[in-house]
Amino acid sequence: MKTLKVVKIGGNIIDDAAKLNPFLASFAAIKGPKILVHGGGKLATQWIEKMNVPVKMIDGRRVTNLQTLDVVTMIYGGKINKSIVAQLQANDCNALGFSGADGNTILAQKRPIRDVDYGFVGDIIRVNTEVIKPLLSQDITLAFCALSHDGKGQLLNTNADTIASELATALSKDFEVELYYCFEKKGVLRNVDDDDSVIECIDASAYKNLRAQKIIADGMIPKLTNCFDALDKNVHKVCIGNTGMLFQPNSKFTNVIK
Amino acid sequence: MKTLKVVKIGGNIIDDAAKLNPFLASFAAIKGPKILVHGGGKLATQWIEKMNVPVKMIDGRRVTNLQTLDVVTMIYGGKINKSIVAQLQANDCNALGFSGADGNTILAQKRPIRDVDYGFVGDIIRVNTEVIKPLLSQDITLAFCALSHDGKGQLLNTNADTIASELATALSKDFEVELYYCFEKKGVLRNVDDDDSVIECIDASAYKNLRAQKIIADGMIPKLTNCFDALDKNVHKVCIGNTGMLFQPNSKFTNVIK
Repeated sequence: MKTLKVVKIGGNIIDDAAKLNPFLASFAAIKGPKILVHGGGKLATQWIEKMNVPVKMIDGRRVTNLQTLDVVTMIYGGKINKSIVAQLQANDCNALGFSGADGNTILAQKRPIRDVDYGFVGDIIRVNTEVIKPLLSQDITLAFCALSHDGKGQLLNTNADTIASELATALSKDFEVELYYCFEKKGVLRNVDDDDSVIECIDASAYKNLRAQKIIADGMIPKLTNCFDALDKNVHKVCIGNTGMLFQPNSKFTNVIK
Repeated sequence: MKTLKVVKIGGNIIDDAAKLNPFLASFAAIKGPKILVHGGGKLATQWIEKMNVPVKMIDGRRVTNLQTLDVVTMIYGGKINKSIVAQLQANDCNALGFSGADGNTILAQKRPIRDVDYGFVGDIIRVNTEVIKPLLSQDITLAFCALSHDGKGQLLNTNADTIASELATALSKDFEVELYYCFEKKGVLRNVDDDDSVIECIDASAYKNLRAQKIIADGMIPKLTNCFDALDKNVHKVCIGNTGMLFQPNSKFTNVIK
């Protein structure tokens, strides 16, 4: 099977052209089929503030009301996605932007209201690969923003890490998929204050120990859950590393293995 | 050759879900390959005002400065394009949204500054059909917003009528293309105050006479220029009509013929 790289970027890189453009140049240079998944960065938050959309937080998570969804659709699907596609084209990488509604690729349902109503947030039901597979075979690079749809006309805000792992999983039937989570740190750190204390390899039992020791905590837990989940569903390889360095020779990063 | 319908919508329909959704339902029901091209409607103008982007007009035309381009990218490429795609999916029409940067489809150059600098406005250099032709063959419906790119990373604002005629022209090598310009009137009118005075057929010599008599004037002139231009470049059929009625049986509209 052919190798497919699924690369998720997020955090501060998206808002910073001085970091984003060199990353996109190195991403464009990767040979073979590839998919980029991007979050929204701080740009969406800035525009939400700029446009006086009232922000409602529950347990530290933003509730996606209709106005927030509009801004997210504008920023993720419009401004960021189209800018990334144009920049990849400038690097001779023939890219095509996607939301989950495009090609009916990511079908989701609005998160059911149990204790909390998170608003227009989508939990993925199914990834349809029939539109994207021929494009990947034609050497078209796909750029996904963090939006899904419910098939009834409603767009939904969906976590970019989850979109990346669900795409990776669904495409594992046809490709040997490598999933890369890129962020501002060099990988999973043994000491959060020492950026060079990268744990180079984590398997399920090491993860269990590191969690017990509270070396892995907070936001790293759902990220690693996504990684192990992807490995369980036949994704070939999962890595966590720094956006600017992951595709550079001899750089350190974290390999997550079964 | 197979028939391909290229349908351009604009004006007030985009801002009005009560009109847009029934139109999209009838568009979705069209059999065979089809492309929808949409402008931005008043929504872009409203957001530009909302966000206090200074608007500069020259001879009645808006200058696209960088802030305006950002808003246009957000509204055309994000909000409107993704909403249309989601709504088409709800009507069992497998749609995929495009800007001209996606798939390197519409390559343009920033309009050269002669007397006037219109800013980030793109004049189309070339339409590349190699990404879109296989999609059309797979029964994927394409939804284009009015953005092109310069191949160097810059998105450009481009007239939606022109995008429609350039796509129609480029695809005429492979399809028998029918180009439909949809707007709020029933077609080209003999009497601008009588919405039923539709001129049902215009050829080049009739156009010349109607212009001389000033029956055709103002905004209708560039629209008809686009139509005759497309016919000259092997587009099979060009029609101008009302968005809500054009695909209804027995409705009146204007046929533009060579």
